[in-house]
Amino acid sequence: MSSTYGDKIKISVFGESHGNGIGVVIDGLPAGFEVDFDRVLTQMARRAPGKDKTATPRKEKDLPKVLSGMLGNRLTGAPLCAVIENTNTKSGDYGNLLDCPRPGHSDYTAFVKYNASNDIRGGGHFSGRLTAPIVFAGAVCRQILESKGIKIAAHISSIGNVSDSSFCPTEIDDALIEKLNSSSFALIDETAEKPMRDAVEDARMAQDSIGGTIECCVTGIDAGYGEPMFEGVEGVIAKAVFGVPAIKGIEFGKGFELSTMRGSQSNDPFEYKDGKVVTTTNNCGGILGGITNGMPIIFRAAVKPTPSISQPQRTVNLQTKENAELVIHGRHDPCIVPRAVPVIEAVTAVAIINLM
Amino acid sequence: MSSTYGDKIKISVFGESHGNGIGVVIDGLPAGFEVDFDRVLTQMARRAPGKDKTATPRKEKDLPKVLSGMLGNRLTGAPLCAVIENTNTKSGDYGNLLDCPRPGHSDYTAFVKYNASNDIRGGGHFSGRLTAPIVFAGAVCRQILESKGIKIAAHISSIGNVSDSSFCPTEIDDALIEKLNSSSFALIDETAEKPMRDAVEDARMAQDSIGGTIECCVTGIDAGYGEPMFEGVEGVIAKAVFGVPAIKGIEFGKGFELSTMRGSQSNDPFEYKDGKVVTTTNNCGGILGGITNGMPIIFRAAVKPTPSISQPQRTVNLQTKENAELVIHGRHDPCIVPRAVPVIEAVTAVAIINLM
Amino acid sequence: MSSTYGDKIKISVFGESHGNGIGVVIDGLPAGFEVDFDRVLTQMARRAPGKDKTATPRKEKDLPKVLSGMLGNRLTGAPLCAVIENTNTKSGDYGNLLDCPRPGHSDYTAFVKYNASNDIRGGGHFSGRLTAPIVFAGAVCRQILESKGIKIAAHISSIGNVSDSSFCPTEIDDALIEKLNSSSFALIDETAEKPMRDAVEDARMAQDSIGGTIECCVTGIDAGYGEPMFEGVEGVIAKAVFGVPAIKGIEFGKGFELSTMRGSQSNDPFEYKDGKVVTTTNNCGGILGGITNGMPIIFRAAVKPTPSISQPQRTVNLQTKENAELVIHGRHDPCIVPRAVPVIEAVTAVAIINLM
Amino acid sequence: MSSTYGDKIKISVFGESHGNGIGVVIDGLPAGFEVDFDRVLTQMARRAPGKDKTATPRKEKDLPKVLSGMLGNRLTGAPLCAVIENTNTKSGDYGNLLDCPRPGHSDYTAFVKYNASNDIRGGGHFSGRLTAPIVFAGAVCRQILESKGIKIAAHISSIGNVSDSSFCPTEIDDALIEKLNSSSFALIDETAEKPMRDAVEDARMAQDSIGGTIECCVTGIDAGYGEPMFEGVEGVIAKAVFGVPAIKGIEFGKGFELSTMRGSQSNDPFEYKDGKVVTTTNNCGGILGGITNGMPIIFRAAVKPTPSISQPQRTVNLQTKENAELVIHGRHDPCIVPRAVPVIEAVTAVAIINLM
Repeated sequence: MSSTYGDKIKISVFGESHGNGIGVVIDGLPAGFEVDFDRVLTQMARRAPGKDKTATPRKEKDLPKVLSGMLGNRLTGAPLCAVIENTNTKSGDYGNLLDCPRPGHSDYTAFVKYNASNDIRGGGHFSGRLTAPIVFAGAVCRQILESKGIKIAAHISSIGNVSDSSFCPTEIDDALIEKLNSSSFALIDETAEKPMRDAVEDARMAQDSIGGTIECCVTGIDAGYGEPMFEGVEGVIAKAVFGVPAIKGIEFGKGFELSTMRGSQSNDPFEYKDGKVVTTTNNCGGILGGITNGMPIIFRAAVKPTPSISQPQRTVNLQTKENAELVIHGRHDPCIVPRAVPVIEAVTAVAIINLM
Repeated sequence: MSSTYGDKIKISVFGESHGNGIGVVIDGLPAGFEVDFDRVLTQMARRAPGKDKTATPRKEKDLPKVLSGMLGNRLTGAPLCAVIENTNTKSGDYGNLLDCPRPGHSDYTAFVKYNASNDIRGGGHFSGRLTAPIVFAGAVCRQILESKGIKIAAHISSIGNVSDSSFCPTEIDDALIEKLNSSSFALIDETAEKPMRDAVEDARMAQDSIGGTIECCVTGIDAGYGEPMFEGVEGVIAKAVFGVPAIKGIEFGKGFELSTMRGSQSNDPFEYKDGKVVTTTNNCGGILGGITNGMPIIFRAAVKPTPSISQPQRTVNLQTKENAELVIHGRHDPCIVPRAVPVIEAVTAVAIINLM
Repeated sequence: MSSTYGDKIKISVFGESHGNGIGVVIDGLPAGFEVDFDRVLTQMARRAPGKDKTATPRKEKDLPKVLSGMLGNRLTGAPLCAVIENTNTKSGDYGNLLDCPRPGHSDYTAFVKYNASNDIRGGGHFSGRLTAPIVFAGAVCRQILESKGIKIAAHISSIGNVSDSSFCPTEIDDALIEKLNSSSFALIDETAEKPMRDAVEDARMAQDSIGGTIECCVTGIDAGYGEPMFEGVEGVIAKAVFGVPAIKGIEFGKGFELSTMRGSQSNDPFEYKDGKVVTTTNNCGGILGGITNGMPIIFRAAVKPTPSISQPQRTVNLQTKENAELVIHGRHDPCIVPRAVPVIEAVTAVAIINLM
Repeated sequence: MSSTYGDKIKISVFGESHGNGIGVVIDGLPAGFEVDFDRVLTQMARRAPGKDKTATPRKEKDLPKVLSGMLGNRLTGAPLCAVIENTNTKSGDYGNLLDCPRPGHSDYTAFVKYNASNDIRGGGHFSGRLTAPIVFAGAVCRQILESKGIKIAAHISSIGNVSDSSFCPTEIDDALIEKLNSSSFALIDETAEKPMRDAVEDARMAQDSIGGTIECCVTGIDAGYGEPMFEGVEGVIAKAVFGVPAIKGIEFGKGFELSTMRGSQSNDPFEYKDGKVVTTTNNCGGILGGITNGMPIIFRAAVKPTPSISQPQRTVNLQTKENAELVIHGRHDPCIVPRAVPVIEAVTAVAIINLM
């Protein structure tokens, strides 16, 4: 039940990091839609590892093979299944993890849940690698959304204490969206890149890792999507976003800052603009009562530091039932925030298309 | 599709603020379980309005009448339905809202979504009053959880800029939980009550309102609950919590603070304690890879200021299609945070029981 | 999880025969739709007991009270909840059933499933009385369907060995549908009424009961509804129809008769008629590959004889763990087929609206 | 949304007859369970074509490749994905079907539903070939059921007018189940094989096809599984069984025959046998009130004649919008009943495991 999302467009993710392959089944897509496959590959490339010093040196092709649901580039209406073969895996690196769970990882909880039978190699089904099929699914879904005028973009809002600018919450122009959508280190203000990369490099040199935040927007969505209560837009997006490994917080509009505000400050005044109802501020992040109000949806997600660090760490040995020290070998990102940006866009696309 | 939650224990909330009644159907409860109905009423009383200056003066009985699913106090296995009749409604207060949506409210989005047919009186189905049946459902679910040793407690973490202490994330004792569970202004450190009430009173005197945060914990839950990806514990709880009106953010463990930390700081070391695997810190909020690790689950939610304020506000007139000024009459909480505490506990109970 | 149906229009049925009330919550209805409440009551009257010798003499008002979701007669978009109070219950009649399960009834299976805690009085949640809220839900759903040109009608296809005529599978006229929709002993050929009533009376005089079949059609539905595989129209309707107590079989089009046919006989030839693709026969019951083909949907359901009969029957005593003899007192229909007709129409309406 | 089934063990089928591959994702399987892969292959071989004159001469390997969810033969808890590559396809055979839908097939309904974009070759996603991954899923699920003492077997109940014996409804022995489970022409009474094969051969010689029925049983299932109303065992099984192409009817226990019986005949008397509650007859097919009563579950399904026949048939040309005559070339089973037997067992296994 774990790895599926959605009622209308249902995605079902499968695979383990060092198994035969990973992939996704997407059910409910509109027959006849023409997929621009190059743009799908572009999104997958943004997430792929090995691009620069912020990412793991493990190189993969990550080329998805479509098994069904597409004839030429046209969707047939049958479930769309894409598979990515696993190659270039170095399973030997993970030997000692069978007994000694990595702090901050799913090793221990998976050990308990799956009766010690889960595939520990490379994190198995919990591997960040499983976000590749999610990006595939999102890349298809966002093309469908774009055909209705709905666009999604995210950027690195912060890494450690270095921040990018924020979206202008009431007006986000298409040029910015396009720039972010094609960037592998997506920033509104590119002067932040240098200090961010420095922060990552500092962490890496210290055999450590570092966290950050991602801000995401959805533009061009009309008022009236979403449902009251438990199918409100916030809940629907949150469920998708928390499906991404390492996400530990989400806030919409002004989010936690609203808790220190007064109603007279936080309420977004309505006004007519070009015959359309808009709000002059967008503290609510485009959502009122769980329903879109026609303004951009804006949220921010917190990414924890990569738990795999090279420093010795305190853990337990589940075989000997004694405390232990662990040194993790292998290849790991000191900061996953840049690569998580297209993943957040992808799950947002999957969430939004399920509101339609 | 809007007002239901859960796969295993399914709750379906119905009602409108000024209709004949509100209520909830709870399907999937264990037959034979004895409900302590007095404790259900205690929880509902904590949420009920009219207790003091922080709450609306509208007084209600809010006594739930059980239509089915319970024989004596014992669950029969049939869907449990409880109804609360609506009395003491003063619908005349809401006349001008039909044309002029209140900023920060669902009036406009509901108008668009429901083709202007929704019951606007008192906020209709979007009313905070609909949290009463949610508290009923949660009060039943938490008794079932308690029979398995799982307890839930929340407190006012902050109102405006006044903060309460936080839970000790690795060890939360039962006495504290019991105290919070029976309080209508739930605080860990009671010296925060006076400045918090002052902050609310200041807002009220200024014809304004004020927001806050709520921290919630779940103790006694074993490792191994939850699923990877989209049914992870964070996502399951978030979907339930965003079902509560006015919630705009949620973070687990250190949450957004993790974004500025390094892995060596944020990773929770494992150790054996009394033969059991524990972590020495709990920055992850009891959840790794979407699965409980046996430590307390801890999260914090952001509550926006009550949007209904008495000051004149800028809005639009949907009939004349002109900009307008709105003055809201009627009875409104200047701060809903204290009353939202039992609601957060309730939705958490409903979420957790669905992980079992 | 038991008593809910539907993804798009979700109905959630609650209640027990001798509890405080029974009812239904319907979520997802279109806001703004005007309900003709008199026609809802007509449908409920068709199902209500006490009309003539085929039905139980227990008389009830069965008047539904709408708690939410309707303002005047207009749907508000909020969940529609209707409650029917239980009155005129004679619980004393059911005393010995606590120990001795009635053959053919759910007494034993409910005893096992619900740990002996289920409300046995009147069959509890398993009572045929719970079909009253289902008829309410169906009556609303079918009005929405009718506004799109889709009509549903059923008739008593047989009682014992006495048969009515069948629908002409390729063309069913509105006058017939209207006649059946307002009848409490719905027949295409009314000359079957006398021998059918005689068969029922014979069974009643013999302290026995008798089964039958119901044929149902859906007209005016376009080609293209339904999904391949597990969400095919047959499966969607079957799941709804098997939700009605006493139904033990369902067949679409020629159904079981197809098993003795050859492809050259069973295949329905296509042809153009008035510019539209039709089939010249309708052996498939309007469904190909799980998807509607634009012809009337036609199915037949088998109704088992009422299990409550006055003759002594062999059973067990669950307390003494010995074999026992049971004599059932109380009021029971010797044949539920006539009253089941509007129930079948109702669940069909709920199923069909979920295909839209 | 179409091709998924189940809440607890969720299967998601993908693929098209002449695409790159077909397969299934199975989510929710118990980690640590050892799969006997040879027995999985045995079930798949029973369904595979090319065995004898009753089946299509198209030969395939149909060997499933497991991409994830299994390490060695042990389930890891991650979604189990198996892929079968498509080879030996002769797409040229299907040219004229693009314009002229085959009577009795999904060609026309898929054309309407999928905007003429569906993959028509070999029936695309509607192909009987898609039952191969279903058999894979069922073969895994039934091993898990068997580990709990639950067995499933089906046989050819009839082909045309030739019938096999029926299961003894109160006692079905393991030897019979084992025999049926390993047979590719599964019969209780093997003397029926000759006349059945003759009936098929007669149809084939006449360029025609023929239907039949399949009877299926589930033994060893305790009382208390299933839910009242819409999640009753009949509905749950029916939804799965109608997911198999060509199924047009289902009946439980005596099914349609119950409609001509009296209650005194149809009610199954209870008695104690070896300290356990049993029924002396099993007219209800092991299900009362939607819940298992501990007796074998028994149902019968109607299979329509294969719609693909070589005789000229009347159809329409969707391009020219004129009536047309169609002659189908290619390789087709004159009777799919024998090969459908393991498919019915498979979907039953998937249905039953979802009741647990």
